[in-house]
Amino acid sequence: MADYQHILVSRENSVVRITMNRPARRNSLSYDHLTELLAAFRSAGESDATGIVLAGEGPVFCAGHDFGDVAARDLGGVRELVLLCTELMRTIEAVPQVVVARVHGLATAAGCQLVASCDLAVASESAGFALPGGAGGWFCHTPAVPVARSVGRKRLMELALTGDVITAVTAERWGLVNQVVADESLDAAVAELVRRATRGSAVSKGWGKRTIYAQLDRPEGDAYAVAVEVMAAASQLAGAREGMAAFLEKRAAVWPD
Amino acid sequence: MADYQHILVSRENSVVRITMNRPARRNSLSYDHLTELLAAFRSAGESDATGIVLAGEGPVFCAGHDFGDVAARDLGGVRELVLLCTELMRTIEAVPQVVVARVHGLATAAGCQLVASCDLAVASESAGFALPGGAGGWFCHTPAVPVARSVGRKRLMELALTGDVITAVTAERWGLVNQVVADESLDAAVAELVRRATRGSAVSKGWGKRTIYAQLDRPEGDAYAVAVEVMAAASQLAGAREGMAAFLEKRAAVWPD
Amino acid sequence: MADYQHILVSRENSVVRITMNRPARRNSLSYDHLTELLAAFRSAGESDATGIVLAGEGPVFCAGHDFGDVAARDLGGVRELVLLCTELMRTIEAVPQVVVARVHGLATAAGCQLVASCDLAVASESAGFALPGGAGGWFCHTPAVPVARSVGRKRLMELALTGDVITAVTAERWGLVNQVVADESLDAAVAELVRRATRGSAVSKGWGKRTIYAQLDRPEGDAYAVAVEVMAAASQLAGAREGMAAFLEKRAAVWPD
Repeated sequence: MADYQHILVSRENSVVRITMNRPARRNSLSYDHLTELLAAFRSAGESDATGIVLAGEGPVFCAGHDFGDVAARDLGGVRELVLLCTELMRTIEAVPQVVVARVHGLATAAGCQLVASCDLAVASESAGFALPGGAGGWFCHTPAVPVARSVGRKRLMELALTGDVITAVTAERWGLVNQVVADESLDAAVAELVRRATRGSAVSKGWGKRTIYAQLDRPEGDAYAVAVEVMAAASQLAGAREGMAAFLEKRAAVWPD
Repeated sequence: MADYQHILVSRENSVVRITMNRPARRNSLSYDHLTELLAAFRSAGESDATGIVLAGEGPVFCAGHDFGDVAARDLGGVRELVLLCTELMRTIEAVPQVVVARVHGLATAAGCQLVASCDLAVASESAGFALPGGAGGWFCHTPAVPVARSVGRKRLMELALTGDVITAVTAERWGLVNQVVADESLDAAVAELVRRATRGSAVSKGWGKRTIYAQLDRPEGDAYAVAVEVMAAASQLAGAREGMAAFLEKRAAVWPD
Repeated sequence: MADYQHILVSRENSVVRITMNRPARRNSLSYDHLTELLAAFRSAGESDATGIVLAGEGPVFCAGHDFGDVAARDLGGVRELVLLCTELMRTIEAVPQVVVARVHGLATAAGCQLVASCDLAVASESAGFALPGGAGGWFCHTPAVPVARSVGRKRLMELALTGDVITAVTAERWGLVNQVVADESLDAAVAELVRRATRGSAVSKGWGKRTIYAQLDRPEGDAYAVAVEVMAAASQLAGAREGMAAFLEKRAAVWPD
């Protein structure tokens, strides 16, 4: 693993765990922290891992941008920071691995955006979610992008305009996270969801994840134009061939990747 | 009615019922089965029926593609199959009739896509829904298109990446089906929803359904650009004129179509 | 305030209240009523108010178009009416203020569209919501545009095709309104939501609201292309500078706008 200052990266079997490790700064996303997270996701993305868990050390999952870092920057400097942050969010979507957010405390602003950008998310009961810029001076414009694509429009507006924290139960009800579990069950629930979500052919699933993000939020005809071609091409993958053969031969599949 | 091998088609009053009838093959969608379903929807679409119910015979609503059929095809052959399947899904959306899925058992892969593609869906308590390709070798790329447009992004990802079955109650909570009813009440509930959804002017409603699918998943300005023109033009339809006259004259409307 | 015939406009502190006041006509949206509502929203939008509440006088919130007005018009005349109505809906989204619908009775057709077009909505328990055109002769094509963007596709279809009324509780569950409260608590709940949603820098929030509507319903890459540039530019606003300084200096912010 690379020599990181702000994050911890470990691997157990086929799952890489990336942990934000600036607890004294509430895991806020300074330029250097973002740079390391991006490098870690790229590295994991190129590895043969099948799952990635994003977690945070300390009392808070992630508090968003580091105002100390932002306040010192001019327009060009902030733009560079926001572009880097956006590159991280989109890389989480682009890697072929299943990415699961493990949310144990407050996830606010770009921290809430991280949760929305992960493919799946499990929250502990005591977690909370907010887009606090709406109650302050710097509106959560970019965090609202993936959050809008997880919850409905009225609920996005409530989060973005009030800045108030919603509970984990509300987040699950609105579709921002997949599961809420007791605090002490969080690691077990994440492990179980990772297990369920990483079965089958990894190559096939990597194509699948990428195609879903390519077709979302487009008129259905445009979405089908992409999905039909990938669906046909994917039928020729070794995993697809093995899966169908195993089914027809009534035996367990042995995934080739 | 045409001479079908794989489906049953009947009509009662103004409602056509199309039943997948390959119970021994779990109503899987072979090329021939898809061809008949497409022909039946086109035929019903051109008829004066106002509602169409899609049902399945046997223990399963529909298990998706027939792997025996897929495995025997090369890339071009699978592409032809996927294009045919997509044509069926889009025809269900294009016909002017209200289409209601009657889901009594498992609806998986392209079977789940059928449910998502029908305008409305009623499920019995024992029904289940899954995109199992995510746990196998051939990812459910095209089924994820209409499913993504019915449930939220995190829930789509859970379905698509885990491949696990969700219950009918969860499907209703996520917005994939409109109602869940006791198994023995399924036909009555479908009939009642068809009745409620086919009131009023059929021509007006046909324009309405088509316009909704045209405006969905577009930026709101683009959506209004379509809907405004249709809304204005539709005011001149005989049904609209009759509806307004009846309202103003405080009498029951007599729909002209 | 201007001299209006069909609406009441008042202001308390920083909140403008616009009340539809044609109770004998169920607050239906005649051309003249729409013209006044549009003028009032534009006027409030240009004011230094930070919040706008849309309410209705009498037993019904708003019954949609006035059939007496529509029936007397030819195609060009109806088109003019629908364009005016759409201009109102989009102006509600375009004004920099937070707009909250106070819904106390039936909100049907374009009345339901008003609720969907407001940024936030609070409903009393006895409120109801419907797109009745689907059960009549003039389909609710344009109302379905913002309603589709608040609720899921299957639920939109149920509203639009059946024309039946859903309760306030169902509307909240589907995401059409943010809260349901006891009838006697409606004004207090609206005031509290307005308070929560109008905190912070008003200029920052105005940019925020506009950017959200600009990025919604677009592929995520397109949405980020907008949001990233606004996020960077917005960091230079006086409110953003003050918010970050106050945070870093551990003091309460004093918003400059």
